[in-house]
Amino acid sequence: MGYTTQGFKASAVSAGLKKNGALDLCLIYSEKAATAAGVFTTNLVKAAPVLLSMEHIRDGKARAIVANAGNANACSGPRGMRGARKTAELVSRSLGILPEEVLVASTGVIGEPLDMNLVSNAIALLAESLGPDGLQDAAKAIMTTDSFSKMARFEGAVDGRPYKITGMAKGAGMIMPDMATMLSFILTDISIDAASLQAALLEGVEKTFNRTTVDGDTSTNDTVFALANGMAGNGPLSQGDLMEFTRGLTLVMDDLARMIARDGEGATKFVTVELKGAASAHDALQGARTIANSALVKTAIYGRDPNWGRIMAALGRAGISMDESATDICVDDVQIVKGGLGCGKKAEKTAAKRMEKDSFVISIDMHLGTFAEKIYTCDLSHEYVSINADYRT
Amino acid sequence: MGYTTQGFKASAVSAGLKKNGALDLCLIYSEKAATAAGVFTTNLVKAAPVLLSMEHIRDGKARAIVANAGNANACSGPRGMRGARKTAELVSRSLGILPEEVLVASTGVIGEPLDMNLVSNAIALLAESLGPDGLQDAAKAIMTTDSFSKMARFEGAVDGRPYKITGMAKGAGMIMPDMATMLSFILTDISIDAASLQAALLEGVEKTFNRTTVDGDTSTNDTVFALANGMAGNGPLSQGDLMEFTRGLTLVMDDLARMIARDGEGATKFVTVELKGAASAHDALQGARTIANSALVKTAIYGRDPNWGRIMAALGRAGISMDESATDICVDDVQIVKGGLGCGKKAEKTAAKRMEKDSFVISIDMHLGTFAEKIYTCDLSHEYVSINADYRT
Repeated sequence: MGYTTQGFKASAVSAGLKKNGALDLCLIYSEKAATAAGVFTTNLVKAAPVLLSMEHIRDGKARAIVANAGNANACSGPRGMRGARKTAELVSRSLGILPEEVLVASTGVIGEPLDMNLVSNAIALLAESLGPDGLQDAAKAIMTTDSFSKMARFEGAVDGRPYKITGMAKGAGMIMPDMATMLSFILTDISIDAASLQAALLEGVEKTFNRTTVDGDTSTNDTVFALANGMAGNGPLSQGDLMEFTRGLTLVMDDLARMIARDGEGATKFVTVELKGAASAHDALQGARTIANSALVKTAIYGRDPNWGRIMAALGRAGISMDESATDICVDDVQIVKGGLGCGKKAEKTAAKRMEKDSFVISIDMHLGTFAEKIYTCDLSHEYVSINADYRT
Repeated sequence: MGYTTQGFKASAVSAGLKKNGALDLCLIYSEKAATAAGVFTTNLVKAAPVLLSMEHIRDGKARAIVANAGNANACSGPRGMRGARKTAELVSRSLGILPEEVLVASTGVIGEPLDMNLVSNAIALLAESLGPDGLQDAAKAIMTTDSFSKMARFEGAVDGRPYKITGMAKGAGMIMPDMATMLSFILTDISIDAASLQAALLEGVEKTFNRTTVDGDTSTNDTVFALANGMAGNGPLSQGDLMEFTRGLTLVMDDLARMIARDGEGATKFVTVELKGAASAHDALQGARTIANSALVKTAIYGRDPNWGRIMAALGRAGISMDESATDICVDDVQIVKGGLGCGKKAEKTAAKRMEKDSFVISIDMHLGTFAEKIYTCDLSHEYVSINADYRT
């Protein structure tokens, strides 16, 4: 299979946590001790598995990831924490590794107790069914309202020795930096020290998941893990090797981030908001984010309406430097605003045609400076409302 | 009529700016020179009428307000500015007052040229049809996606001399502080100096319109005007009189603000988010606002689902001090979270019943300090998406 990665095995089962009987619990196991890095939600309300994994990853080592969907084990108090710990212990016992080598992640409904009986019963089976081809099932098991599973890969080499980076993610709702509100697990057989892996992961997350938004709500469970088991057998990484690895890792996460925006809850459009000519790096990011999160811009996208007045209004309230009369806006190659003024009905009609496509770019040039940023987003549809009005029922 | 206010006349016509032929242009006229106060959008992109009215109100005096719906005259460049100026001039000529005594306000689509022929043709008719009973029609003429016109009043007295405060507003979409994204005109016959009127208006706006949100998008056209024509004949205001007037003004704006949230685009529920026990005034406001603007909280309200995990998650990402395990949440009188943990399915069922009502209160006690705030909001429905996907078509 295209996603197998040397030295990693995985499995997934239906433990009964999802009401529809789909895969909902998965295990990823590294045959060798792996260096490990993690990035976690900035939400002050952190789920029990987030708190536990922050503890377990501190030494930069891990052997296994156990993750469930269907229940976030968040806002679950001491009982939730005991459940997360118990999960790690059960996995450690069934694999013969230390509990501290097990990372735990959860996603799903907040505030309901995790049924530990269901988890306990399933873990032995998970351990038994581990295999090199299990990653695709694992990617399915972490889905919640996702409509497709998300995987990506990169192949590189150090001194002629090939290595591979394989990533999976789930997204769909409660998606907004920082950090990217989702689960993502990245596996690689490269040999790399924990500090370099953490630095590369942080750099990649910042450029990809943290540039993605579905609804502006940051989750309590966001987690990205990277495990590197060293089985590629490469020697120490040069500065150039490290740059190339970081690039590959970022590409994998960029693919996953795009998939998350494309598969945003109820999304019918994948949109990249590109803002350039901003007066500062902060302004570029803040401006792009404000547009990408505006309910009015997102509903206009859903309606295939190049309603640029809403984009101007979003920029104007973003708390950044702005000169209305210097602002240009395009949809793909079609300019709809020049110097703050509309380019007319004909341009808007052509832009509306571009918006019929599954994906397009809204680009803004503020002509105030040299700073640029991009954000991946999606539209706000009837389906988003349906999904989130009825999520728990 | 209940809304007539001594010395003020008004009228409204259908000038053809709304496609459906409804009232869309109105004039409010004070027989005597009035002291005037104004509060305007904080959006850097300010519509032409906002810029012009900021100029005209600087001296604290005004005689007339002319307002249109159907076109915001925003992002319209020098041409838009000429249009706003021309509107003020035409009104001044037909009323025999100075152009600087005319305040202009617009609301509607951004970025389309205002058809000045339609406006010019209608102004003579507007002036001719001025009457003391015209305020209700004026309130209708400023509606855009509003489903009902919004008026409120207050009666007070200074030294036994009665005075009246009458307010009108339009809201519906692009509603988010600061400042309240809407038009509101307040008329009173009290005698008051411009500085006191401005101070009272600012205080009232801050407590009411700036505590209201529909979709988190701040408009380019937000405007609140207050005109006081002094025809109540009262003498100088004591400190107590001023406090009473400010209270009355605030009550009028509070009524209007509640109506705006209740009539939010597609809203099926009017919700007051009350946050108390915050560690600072900033935290109280920021926390309440983050909950009131969360797409996930608002869709849960639409689904009548007391999904308190989303409230906790919103608080956790609000950028404020928070202790998850100290947080309590109620829907009206029903406690659903105690010390960060859910109170069980039975409590949630009772809370869900409260959420069947047209309006209810979500109250949060953070138990960290003594600061409290409230925000008026509404749910996020299929209808909001429909209205805003198809707004220009």
